[in-house]
Amino acid sequence: MRLIKNLKFDEKGLIPAIVQDAGTGEVLMLGYMNEEALRRALSSGEVWFYSRSRQELWHKGETSGNRIIVRELWQDCDSDTILVRGKATGPVCHTGNKTCFFQPLTKEDLEAGQGE
Amino acid sequence: MRLIKNLKFDEKGLIPAIVQDAGTGEVLMLGYMNEEALRRALSSGEVWFYSRSRQELWHKGETSGNRIIVRELWQDCDSDTILVRGKATGPVCHTGNKTCFFQPLTKEDLEAGQGE
Repeated sequence: MRLIKNLKFDEKGLIPAIVQDAGTGEVLMLGYMNEEALRRALSSGEVWFYSRSRQELWHKGETSGNRIIVRELWQDCDSDTILVRGKATGPVCHTGNKTCFFQPLTKEDLEAGQGE
Repeated sequence: MRLIKNLKFDEKGLIPAIVQDAGTGEVLMLGYMNEEALRRALSSGEVWFYSRSRQELWHKGETSGNRIIVRELWQDCDSDTILVRGKATGPVCHTGNKTCFFQPLTKEDLEAGQGE
């Protein structure tokens, strides 16, 4: 079976997938899909990942109920990254935040790090 | 020297960095930073990556002239992904497209792939 559209999965069989809110444009999270997760996302219209920590397929929201409905999927120019544009049914982050990117990283962090 | 804000670099010393247009919200590309690239991005205010193919530090735009000016940097909840919100001085993609994500991935691609 041919890999979907010649997508490049890494040596662990994974490809990073950026999830963006299709309405607001906010970047919500980065997950990893294996080929089966991508097939399920394409066929079901909901986001599936491969959990690297649990080493299993992960239907996003299966526990929290906060699923992500796929609006559009895109692959990048060299076919090694996926962009999901979708709508989440609740907060995407396990912390309860809408997005996983809620912690700023500044020059001060750099300076603090170098002194130690 | 402490890792910047306890960021988690992978076994190759890299961390994925999503680049988003700070004005339009468009997702432009995914690159990889090592610690030095991140330090340079934080201190210079321009995006630096680590090129996995060339295995060297890569000042984005050093060849094309299309640099990315950092507006904000964010780390995700589990500190293994970075989000750069910035402004590119020209097309980010080596193909000349504004974004690297210009190829849609649809259910039809899945069906076409399975028949082969």
